[in-house]
Amino acid sequence: MENVPSLQDLRDAHERIKPFVHRTPVFHSELIDQAAGTSVFFKCENLQKVGAFKMRGATNAVLCLSDAQRSSGVATHSSGNHAQALAKAAKIVGCQAFIVMPETAPKVKVNAVKAYGAEIIFCAPTLQAREDTLKEVQERTGAAFIHPFDDYRVIAGQATAALELMEEIKDLDIFMTPVGGGGLLAGTALAVHYLQPQSQVMAGEPSGADDAYRSLQTGEIQPSVNPDTIADGLLTSLSTKTFGIIKQYVSRIITVDDQEIKQAMRLLWERMKIVVEPSGAVPLAAVLQQPQLFAGKPIGIIISGGNVDLDQFSFR
Amino acid sequence: MENVPSLQDLRDAHERIKPFVHRTPVFHSELIDQAAGTSVFFKCENLQKVGAFKMRGATNAVLCLSDAQRSSGVATHSSGNHAQALAKAAKIVGCQAFIVMPETAPKVKVNAVKAYGAEIIFCAPTLQAREDTLKEVQERTGAAFIHPFDDYRVIAGQATAALELMEEIKDLDIFMTPVGGGGLLAGTALAVHYLQPQSQVMAGEPSGADDAYRSLQTGEIQPSVNPDTIADGLLTSLSTKTFGIIKQYVSRIITVDDQEIKQAMRLLWERMKIVVEPSGAVPLAAVLQQPQLFAGKPIGIIISGGNVDLDQFSFR
Repeated sequence: MENVPSLQDLRDAHERIKPFVHRTPVFHSELIDQAAGTSVFFKCENLQKVGAFKMRGATNAVLCLSDAQRSSGVATHSSGNHAQALAKAAKIVGCQAFIVMPETAPKVKVNAVKAYGAEIIFCAPTLQAREDTLKEVQERTGAAFIHPFDDYRVIAGQATAALELMEEIKDLDIFMTPVGGGGLLAGTALAVHYLQPQSQVMAGEPSGADDAYRSLQTGEIQPSVNPDTIADGLLTSLSTKTFGIIKQYVSRIITVDDQEIKQAMRLLWERMKIVVEPSGAVPLAAVLQQPQLFAGKPIGIIISGGNVDLDQFSFR
Repeated sequence: MENVPSLQDLRDAHERIKPFVHRTPVFHSELIDQAAGTSVFFKCENLQKVGAFKMRGATNAVLCLSDAQRSSGVATHSSGNHAQALAKAAKIVGCQAFIVMPETAPKVKVNAVKAYGAEIIFCAPTLQAREDTLKEVQERTGAAFIHPFDDYRVIAGQATAALELMEEIKDLDIFMTPVGGGGLLAGTALAVHYLQPQSQVMAGEPSGADDAYRSLQTGEIQPSVNPDTIADGLLTSLSTKTFGIIKQYVSRIITVDDQEIKQAMRLLWERMKIVVEPSGAVPLAAVLQQPQLFAGKPIGIIISGGNVDLDQFSFR
């Protein structure tokens, strides 16, 4: 897919992945509405396969490959949700996944990827080592590289969460996602632009990794420098493809600090009884920070994922 | 309701409460199936209003009152989920709730009950003080006492979770709930007895509060003596009405220790991304303890609630 996905591309992606991903539920809580001062509907991608929306994009990308391409497998570098998603998507279509991970990746994540039958190739924890190792793997195997977000097939896949949300809840005024590399935000922005152009698309971003905020302000990609936030899924910077879409169709990015993220996360756990990872709580944190922006405007939030390392939590 | 509820009573309860309670989703996880060695379907009453199945029984009981009775309000003694459920149910039908709570009740629970507009009457943390205070409240107000479980209206309400589960997932071989006072277990046992008598009903119970296990063994109610378990919703003993039903229709009670409960709870949080209170994880703990009993037999588990005090958990 060489061009920005069209509405038909998004719909094709949805038909393609439907048999392999969950149609996640949309949750709603009176108590959260009271706290937010408006109606908030949560599309629960934490309840998606592998616990994150990444399953949508990875599955679409793998299903777009030709049989010949599939026979050589797929490869990526990631220690996060995209790694698990690509491993699982490859398993579904019966092709081999090669995942480059830093030696420092948490064992629980390594084991999760292994459990889906992927081959893991460890590298030093630097960008250079990661890219070199990925190149080696591709040369050795001929595997197709599936980037976590700088790929229109992936972006079209991520857009399908918003398609489902719009089908289910009519007349949302504002759609929000978190933003890291920008795949979910770009996909959501496209879907809303095509189907509900009168609605706004916004994002929440950790202030400790505010490259997207700065990029939207300046109109040029500003890379993350030493990002530091509890929202470990949002450390990456935007890419050319995601920023190209975000620049056009996203009206605002709101930054929130880690304390605000933790409070929003706790509210979701406590009131909706669902496990949400810090990254997934970022948009709600933004809504709670700026109630005057949202008063009386129904909001749809895509909860990105629920992969929390529960070792962080302990019974006192 | 003077007699053990009939099938028609259960169906009437379901129609009565439907507009006021959630039809909770049924969740399923391939990874939990693998761990359990069979298919396990979870009826998620942690996603019910007030975060627990108790909403069903309390709502049915309140809706069964005459207008004259409602005008004097309802009363109960509880510091747990029944207190919140009765307060919320009373608010829905527009009658006053009076809740007797020990002075030692956690502030978060007191506040939750207050938020539903109930009047709280504190008492010393003894059974005698609780009963005396409740009697005083009833004499002062004329409120109708709604017992947390020794009440056929409440039992019929709790049975509706199993009605929904049977409608949604056909041919379950075994139904399981946790057991404390026995309202959910008795209701489930009745529903399964009437509609799927070829299936079995079992319960999980904490070994630190194993009165139901001992009662079923001996055929007579054995009270809890100094119960001690992390499953704080299961400290109470069976009552005449609940034991009468359980004795007839429950085939087995399996006891599990707190370590097993914590492991099952973590599995539910980690794999299904839902917040389950310790009591709600007890049936899964029993399945994981005795895989040979369940191999190849599809199980339906009612997850009783999700009200966990998150202050117990901390980021390291």
